[in-house]
Amino acid sequence: MASTLLYEDLAGRLGAQIRRGLLRPGERLPSLRRLGRQERVSIATAVEAYLRLEREGLVEARERSGYFVRAQRVAVPAARLPRVQARAPQALRNPALLGVLDVLSREDLLPLHVTTPAPELLPGRAIAAATTHVLRRDPGVALAYGAPQGLPALREQIARRYLRCGVEVDPGEIVVTAGAMEAITLALRSVTRAGDVVLLETPTYYGILQAISALGLRAIEVPNRVGSGIDAAALRALLARHAVRAAVLVPNFNNPTGSLTGDDDKREIVAACGEHGVTVIEDDLYGELAYSGERPAPLRRYAGRTSVITCSSYSKTLAPGLRIGWALAGTHVDDLVRAKCFSSVATAGLPQRAITEYLVRHDFDRALRRLRRELATNAQRWRDAIRRGWPEGTRVSDPAGGTTLWLELAGGVDAQALFEAAVARGIGCLPGHLFSLRGDYRTHLRLGLGLAWSPPVEAALRELGRLAGRFARRRTPKEGHE
Amino acid sequence: MASTLLYEDLAGRLGAQIRRGLLRPGERLPSLRRLGRQERVSIATAVEAYLRLEREGLVEARERSGYFVRAQRVAVPAARLPRVQARAPQALRNPALLGVLDVLSREDLLPLHVTTPAPELLPGRAIAAATTHVLRRDPGVALAYGAPQGLPALREQIARRYLRCGVEVDPGEIVVTAGAMEAITLALRSVTRAGDVVLLETPTYYGILQAISALGLRAIEVPNRVGSGIDAAALRALLARHAVRAAVLVPNFNNPTGSLTGDDDKREIVAACGEHGVTVIEDDLYGELAYSGERPAPLRRYAGRTSVITCSSYSKTLAPGLRIGWALAGTHVDDLVRAKCFSSVATAGLPQRAITEYLVRHDFDRALRRLRRELATNAQRWRDAIRRGWPEGTRVSDPAGGTTLWLELAGGVDAQALFEAAVARGIGCLPGHLFSLRGDYRTHLRLGLGLAWSPPVEAALRELGRLAGRFARRRTPKEGHE
Repeated sequence: MASTLLYEDLAGRLGAQIRRGLLRPGERLPSLRRLGRQERVSIATAVEAYLRLEREGLVEARERSGYFVRAQRVAVPAARLPRVQARAPQALRNPALLGVLDVLSREDLLPLHVTTPAPELLPGRAIAAATTHVLRRDPGVALAYGAPQGLPALREQIARRYLRCGVEVDPGEIVVTAGAMEAITLALRSVTRAGDVVLLETPTYYGILQAISALGLRAIEVPNRVGSGIDAAALRALLARHAVRAAVLVPNFNNPTGSLTGDDDKREIVAACGEHGVTVIEDDLYGELAYSGERPAPLRRYAGRTSVITCSSYSKTLAPGLRIGWALAGTHVDDLVRAKCFSSVATAGLPQRAITEYLVRHDFDRALRRLRRELATNAQRWRDAIRRGWPEGTRVSDPAGGTTLWLELAGGVDAQALFEAAVARGIGCLPGHLFSLRGDYRTHLRLGLGLAWSPPVEAALRELGRLAGRFARRRTPKEGHE
Repeated sequence: MASTLLYEDLAGRLGAQIRRGLLRPGERLPSLRRLGRQERVSIATAVEAYLRLEREGLVEARERSGYFVRAQRVAVPAARLPRVQARAPQALRNPALLGVLDVLSREDLLPLHVTTPAPELLPGRAIAAATTHVLRRDPGVALAYGAPQGLPALREQIARRYLRCGVEVDPGEIVVTAGAMEAITLALRSVTRAGDVVLLETPTYYGILQAISALGLRAIEVPNRVGSGIDAAALRALLARHAVRAAVLVPNFNNPTGSLTGDDDKREIVAACGEHGVTVIEDDLYGELAYSGERPAPLRRYAGRTSVITCSSYSKTLAPGLRIGWALAGTHVDDLVRAKCFSSVATAGLPQRAITEYLVRHDFDRALRRLRRELATNAQRWRDAIRRGWPEGTRVSDPAGGTTLWLELAGGVDAQALFEAAVARGIGCLPGHLFSLRGDYRTHLRLGLGLAWSPPVEAALRELGRLAGRFARRRTPKEGHE
C-alpha cells in the first residue's frame, strides 16, 4: 500500500513538471537508479512511476536509452523556456540539406550563396609562387608524412598573428587541421561524449548542427541577435538551468547573421561558461574579416581560467582549396592530437609548407586589407541591389564583417520554395531553416558575399528579388500588389 | 509469492548462462523492457532479477546504459567462444598509445616502426613536377574549394585502375578523402551507429580500434592468421551468433601481420557477410604492394549484391604527404559525401590536381614496380638481420607484400618493456598489444619496412635484437643463456 502511494505521488510530481514545461519534450528523464536515489524510493517504485506516466502519454521509453518526455499536445510557451533538443539524428537525412549539397556541387549555378571569397579576391599568384618555391627547394616535400599536430613553423606563424589581438598562444597548443570544420569536430570529440548537452546559437552554421547530430549530442539554443550577436545574459540563464558540457559559438561575424558579439558580452559569456565548467568551442573563421578597423577579439582573449578552444582556418582569408585550419586547443591539445591522429592521421604537408612560405615571404596583411575592402564593397552592393529590386518590407542584415547576408523575406514568403525556384533558374541561395535545429527561420534566406561583383551577379540578385516578389504576391492576393 | 519465484527463477537462469560463458564479460544484457517481453514477466520482476544478479556480483549497472555482465574471477575458456567486447572508451586513453604518438612525432628516432615508404622509394621529383605544372597552368588552383565528393578527373583515374584487378567502379560512387583512415571513419559513420557491433580482425591496425572506440561501437574479433589471413569459416560462425552491423577487414597484407587472405576465403567472407546483411568496410591500403605477380583482388571484386566499401589511398604508394585517399562507396555514396561534407567539408584541391596530373602524364606503374621491388628486398634484409642477430626462437612473419613485419619475441619477452628500452636508445618499434582491443600480443612486436636500407638501419635492427636478447635472458636465467 505504502509503495503504491509512493509511486503515484512520484508520478504525480513528475507529471506536473512535464505539464508546466519544466521537463521539456524530448528531454531524457533520470535513469531508474538515479531517480530512486534522488527520490529515496526503490527502483521498483521508480519503474511503477514511469509506467504510470507512460500510460498517461506523458513519457515514452526508448529501447536501451531510458525514458523521455513526450511531445505534448497542449502548447507550452516555447519562447519562454530554454529550448532543449533531443538528439535529432534525422537532421543528417534532412532532405533540405540534400538540396544544399546539390547546390554546393552543381557547377552550372550562379552561386549567390557562396561565402568563400572568389579567386579574384585572393592572392592566388603569390600562393602559387610560394608553393612552387617550396617544391623547388625540396622536391620530396610532397612525400613526407607530417606529425599529426602539424608543421611547427606553421604553428608558430599562427601563434604570432594572435599576438596582434592580444592573445598569447603557445605554438605547442596549436593543432593544424583540414579546415575549421575539422577543428570543431575534433574539439567536440575531445570534450564531449554522446548524450551530452551542447549550447549553440540560433541561427547558426548548419555544419555545426550536423556535427552535433553526428556525434549524438543534444543541444540547447541561445539567440544570436542580428546586429548584436550573442546575448550573454540569456546564455547565463540557460547555463544556470541546464547541465551543459560545451558551447559552440561564433561571436565574430556569425554565419548566417553576420552579427558581431560585443566585447562586454564576450567577457560575460566566457565568465559564465567558466563558472559552470563549460568548455567554449569558438568558431573564429570570420574574425579577420572586419570591414574596417581592428579585427575583433576572439573569446579566447578573455579566457582566463575558462577553457576556450578557438577554431579557424585560412579558407576564408587566403587559400580555400588548401584546406588548412587550426585549433588553439589549450589544455586539450593532447586529446585533439589524438583525435586527429585517429581520424585523418595528419594534415597534408605540402599545403602547410606552402602557406608557411607565403606567410613568411609575402604580405598577408596587404592581401587581407584588399579582401576586407572588397567584401565591404560587396556587402554595400548586395544591400543596394536588394533595396532597389526586392519587395518592400524585405529586411536585410548590415554586417560589419564576414561574408554573409541574412534576409527576412517580405510577406511571409516560404524561403524553401524560393530556394527551389531560384535553383531551377540557375541561382544558388540558402533557405533559413537550414540554420536551425528545429526548422525555424522559414521566411529567412542566407546569401554569401564571396563572389566578385559582375553583371551576372547583379542580374542574379535582381532575378532572385523578382522571384521573391512573385511569391509574396501569391501569398497576399488581397493586399492589392497585383 | 509467485512473483518472487519468477524473479529468482529468471536470475538463476541468467546466472547460469553467465557462468557457462554464454553471456560474456562486458556484454550488455537486454533492457528491462525487452527482458520482460522475452521472458513474459513484468518489468518489476526483471528489475528484481537484475538486482539479484548484481548482489551476486555477476552483473553491473552502468548509469544510463543498462546492465552488463561483469568480468568473472573463474576463468572461462576464452579461445573457445567468440570474443565479444563491450564498448571500450578507455582505449582512447590507452597510455601505451600515447607512447605511440610520442614515437610518431619524435624526430630524433630511427623509426624502425615506419610503414610509410621513405622518400627515396617514391617518385618525389615527378610529383613535384606535376604539382608545379598544375600551378603554372592555373595559379588559382590552390584557391578553389572543390566539391565534397572530390575532383571528377581524379575519381576517374581511381576507377580506371581498379579495372585491372577485375573491379568495375563507377567514378560517381567514389569519394575522395584525406587518406584511407578518413575513408574508413566516414564509412563507419555512414553505416553504423553507437552501440552497434562491428567485426574486426585480431590483430589489426590500432587506428581502426581507435575509430571503433571513438564512435562508441562494440567489437567482436576474428583471428587474422599469420600467413593465411582471415579465416572465413571462423568469420561465418561469428556472424551466425552475433548481430553484426559491419565488418572492417584488411584482407591484403594486413597491418600488422602482413598476411594475405586467399581468394577462396575472400569469396566466402563476402558471401557470409551478404547473407547476414553485414556491410564490409575493406581497408585495401596495401593492395598494390604485392612483392611479385599481380596485385591481389580486393573483397570488392567478389561483392555481388553484398555491400562492400573499399578504402585506400596514395599514402603508401605515391605521395604520403598529400593525404589523398578514397572510398568506393557503392550505394552508400550519398551518406559518405554527406559525412565528409560535415566533417572536413572537402579534400584539399591542389593535392588532388597534382596526383591527377601525375597519373595522367607520368608512369605510375614503373614507380610502383620499383617500390614493390625495394619493399621485397627490405623484407628480405630485415628478416635476414633478425635471423642473424636476434635471440633464437624469435619468430618473424614472411609477408608476400605490404610494409610490415610481425615478430613473436623469444623467451616470452614483454614487448612493451622492449619498446620502452628501444625508444630510450633512439629506436622506434611498436609493441604488439596496440593491435588488440584486449591487450593481447604482449610478446609481439611490429616493425615497418618503410625505411630505405642503410648502415644506421642495419645497426638499429642489430641493437633491437641485442635488447630483445637481454630481456629474454633476464626472464629465463636458469636456461643457461648467460
